[in-house]
Amino acid sequence: MGKTTKDQLGRIVTPPHAMRPPAVILVRPQLGENIGAAVRNMLNFGLSELRLVSPRDGWPNPDADAMAAGALPVLEQAKVYAIAEEAVADLHYVLATTARRRDLEIPVLGTKNIGSKLRKIGVGGQNTGVMFGPEKAGLTNDDVVLADAILTYPINPAFQSLNLAQAVGIFAYMWAADEGVPPVFKDTNMKPASREDLVRMMEHLEAELEKSGFFYPPSKMPLMKRNIRAPFMRAKMTEQEVRTMRGMIKSLAKGRGRGRESNNET
Amino acid sequence: MGKTTKDQLGRIVTPPHAMRPPAVILVRPQLGENIGAAVRNMLNFGLSELRLVSPRDGWPNPDADAMAAGALPVLEQAKVYAIAEEAVADLHYVLATTARRRDLEIPVLGTKNIGSKLRKIGVGGQNTGVMFGPEKAGLTNDDVVLADAILTYPINPAFQSLNLAQAVGIFAYMWAADEGVPPVFKDTNMKPASREDLVRMMEHLEAELEKSGFFYPPSKMPLMKRNIRAPFMRAKMTEQEVRTMRGMIKSLAKGRGRGRESNNET
Repeated sequence: MGKTTKDQLGRIVTPPHAMRPPAVILVRPQLGENIGAAVRNMLNFGLSELRLVSPRDGWPNPDADAMAAGALPVLEQAKVYAIAEEAVADLHYVLATTARRRDLEIPVLGTKNIGSKLRKIGVGGQNTGVMFGPEKAGLTNDDVVLADAILTYPINPAFQSLNLAQAVGIFAYMWAADEGVPPVFKDTNMKPASREDLVRMMEHLEAELEKSGFFYPPSKMPLMKRNIRAPFMRAKMTEQEVRTMRGMIKSLAKGRGRGRESNNET
Repeated sequence: MGKTTKDQLGRIVTPPHAMRPPAVILVRPQLGENIGAAVRNMLNFGLSELRLVSPRDGWPNPDADAMAAGALPVLEQAKVYAIAEEAVADLHYVLATTARRRDLEIPVLGTKNIGSKLRKIGVGGQNTGVMFGPEKAGLTNDDVVLADAILTYPINPAFQSLNLAQAVGIFAYMWAADEGVPPVFKDTNMKPASREDLVRMMEHLEAELEKSGFFYPPSKMPLMKRNIRAPFMRAKMTEQEVRTMRGMIKSLAKGRGRGRESNNET
């Protein structure tokens, strides 16, 4: 959807950067619940154009509305077509999803980099779409030949029972998982401790351990120190964590002064 | 799950190539339907180890069974734990899924190459798992700190309403979409036509077009021929398609003999 502009001849022009995400085309879907759940799954990953080809139970469908929840506006904008040919008429690149091999001379794609591929075509100003067949039977060969390529999911050969809405959701995820999309949030702003802070922390720990008699026999001290340091270095501690750790060392050492005189446990 | 062997000290050893797929850990799931649908989604992409932490409505749950359909055996093997700590106790690498930023010093991962990452850890003999929180609230910070990393989906910031089973299914897809997994089926065994076949086909077409008076004015014939050839070359036709095309040319030429004497349409 989104805003459209037209050229002098009245043709709809997609601005080069306002790329249109792929349309999801449900061909002869059976259950309204699945249509509603599909739309919800779509919108979770930024897809909002639904096309329906001859939905079995007519349209609109209250079961679909009930399942769509917050994605109802997308459902209300869905376009309905009598046949698949009409639903893909304005598209330039169409994928057909199927879990079984067809005897058709159409390239078969895995899901790898599908998001990037569609995004690249879309940025070029072309309209893309993906067809999903009815729940039980899937797309017919007549549907599939409308497509530029077959899209296959890496499904478990021993258990192929993917729900329609789930299949749509995974496609939407593929779209959103493209490298061009920034992550929703990143690491917290961890401020790693400086090497100096870490070394001082280790010296503090080692000094307290030495006072406690931990390094026994003394000849093994250098080796023991190295072994103690390793995990603390691997932990990539933050400044705050180093401060906390030094507080813990201090506290433990104090406690030792009050209680047992020596502690040789690791 | 799977067979285990033990070393001399009685420790469980995973044979290097018998890699164990990640366990899915549902922490305090609420709806049985979601547990059943999650298992079905898991098995579609080859995951079969479910762990449940304190499911709200107890266990077993008939609503879960009903939704699991053919994946019921996986559901029946699910292990139930009182607290998350117990559910992850035997794992070496754990992910926590969350859609919102936490103020925890835990690395945040996107979904890219997660399948490969987990497979690599698994091949090394370590057990992996992924935690999903309850439907409404998600994981608590106390749950998340049990994990090695946070896993974030590229979710639509304007519509974050991912169903629990769907989230599990997308994780299972990530696992199965790894490069190490062969595709379920490939292109049909297209036998491309030889260049010679294609050239003969074009010569056949051009000869018939010439007889029909198509190339007018004759001076433009070389240019017109080139323009006609281009799309046929791009189509990467198979041997069978070339045979069919030649039949069509023959048939059209015959028809022309019977009817109109010249045909200058493209």
